Amino acid sequence: VNQPSQSEIENPNVDVAIVGLGLMGASLALALREHGSRPGAPLRVGRLIGVARREDTVREAMQRGMVDFATTDFAAGVVQAGVVVLAAPVRTIITQLRTQAGAFKPGAVITDLGSTKTEIVRAMDGLPDGLHAVGSHPMCGKEVTGLQAADADLYVGKRWILTRTARSDDASFDLIGRLAQTAGANTLELDPARQDRLVAVASHLPYALASSLVATAEQVSLDDPALWQVTASGFRDTSRLAASDVTMMLDILLTNREAVSGAIRDFQFHLDQLTALLERQDEAGLRTYLYAAAQARKEKGSHW
Amino acid sequence: VNQPSQSEIENPNVDVAIVGLGLMGASLALALREHGSRPGAPLRVGRLIGVARREDTVREAMQRGMVDFATTDFAAGVVQAGVVVLAAPVRTIITQLRTQAGAFKPGAVITDLGSTKTEIVRAMDGLPDGLHAVGSHPMCGKEVTGLQAADADLYVGKRWILTRTARSDDASFDLIGRLAQTAGANTLELDPARQDRLVAVASHLPYALASSLVATAEQVSLDDPALWQVTASGFRDTSRLAASDVTMMLDILLTNREAVSGAIRDFQFHLDQLTALLERQDEAGLRTYLYAAAQARKEKGSHW
Repeated sequence: VNQPSQSEIENPNVDVAIVGLGLMGASLALALREHGSRPGAPLRVGRLIGVARREDTVREAMQRGMVDFATTDFAAGVVQAGVVVLAAPVRTIITQLRTQAGAFKPGAVITDLGSTKTEIVRAMDGLPDGLHAVGSHPMCGKEVTGLQAADADLYVGKRWILTRTARSDDASFDLIGRLAQTAGANTLELDPARQDRLVAVASHLPYALASSLVATAEQVSLDDPALWQVTASGFRDTSRLAASDVTMMLDILLTNREAVSGAIRDFQFHLDQLTALLERQDEAGLRTYLYAAAQARKEKGSHW
Repeated sequence: VNQPSQSEIENPNVDVAIVGLGLMGASLALALREHGSRPGAPLRVGRLIGVARREDTVREAMQRGMVDFATTDFAAGVVQAGVVVLAAPVRTIITQLRTQAGAFKPGAVITDLGSTKTEIVRAMDGLPDGLHAVGSHPMCGKEVTGLQAADADLYVGKRWILTRTARSDDASFDLIGRLAQTAGANTLELDPARQDRLVAVASHLPYALASSLVATAEQVSLDDPALWQVTASGFRDTSRLAASDVTMMLDILLTNREAVSGAIRDFQFHLDQLTALLERQDEAGLRTYLYAAAQARKEKGSHW
């Protein structure tokens, strides 16, 4: 029973277990269900298995027909899966990789959906021989969380970063790329340190700014409650990320501490420059600064 | 000819001149055209007159039927109007108030659409007796600019701050409130210093953060061009305001310098707190900070 089966990787019908049925995991289940059975799909998905922490999540996933089988039992959920997607917060993923390696089917390909990669890839590197592992970071999300917010199109047109690990070979790397494409995403390979440094600027810094902006507004509103009455669409969009899931973001910040600190320091340098131009009323300098930012925002964001 | 006509204020059909046919002015023209002729409208609008700097804007406004008459001649445009809306960048509005007071029809009510109020209200205070003036700040906008982007619903459901001046009386204040309501906005009265302080936090600070975020990303992308490939919806929304019209924003920052500097300093204090919690890995403190911001963002933004 459960012979190592490298052939699983090329198998046109691969069973996929998704561990964690929050927004990201449940949306991936819907996407694979919808697109993974098409004849031309990059990856043909066989059985879909869901693993959730709570009994009512298991029940709801089954009732909605999101998965073929759902369970709260990690080992029972992953034992037959050729692909396992770890879709929990980052530090939970790391714990699962460190403590549950024995539960995976020999030959299985493990991936994850975590936003930071260095620590996750280190844990993947430590998986036993005979398992495959590829790091994934699909760059999408919503402020709403949970299975109820699941959306089969969450991944469509979005960036999905792939990182190789000591447990990646070409076949497993290709397989996870096809999983991402089946969900509708565009893949990009980066090494873990580079991905963490870039995503610190592109994603974790904006979250820190949004949270600090809301903290500032809260403080000001203590002196003058009319503050919240004059917030409008500009404040709404700039602060949107502050409403992200705190448990998820806490894990992200703590596992990408140095890169996020560095991104904040870089940002503070640029904000200080802007403030200095403003305070000394350097109109020409201020115009140049703001114009460059406006141009970059308009030109570089063409893929959004 | 041109007797002071206080009755203009109660006149059910008031001629409105809009000076500046960019996004804000042209959208107001469309809104007043669409809603200002309804029998139950808070303000019944008579003739709509547009004043623009460029001949082709004049031509386009006429071709689109946005206004009954358009001209590049300030004096010719405002001479018969019972209400004049100054819809240019803030420092242009201030210059117009200081140099063109003789062009207004005696008894006319002057308002504006500028984002800062202290300096504009000071200029309004200096208008001659016999003119009325009320400061306006409708809190809406788009990244796209110009008459082509005009939208009759731009003001619907949006906040419109009103400020009294030395040239406001109850009738003129009421009239501009009804103008705002006719465009679909919700009015809120604030004194100029308070509006500038609050809007510095709610609107100008988010713009400064967005611009500095883009400047940071540009700098990082010089070392690693893949940066722009990993920006996604979080970066997109947090940086949206950086694409605002630079001329408009430059005037806003320069005429609200002290309040914006103060808001940036307040923000830096909160960002420093977040950074310190992260660097010393104070998980409980970080969770408390992020959770408070998430809760505030979800609860306080219910009117957006």
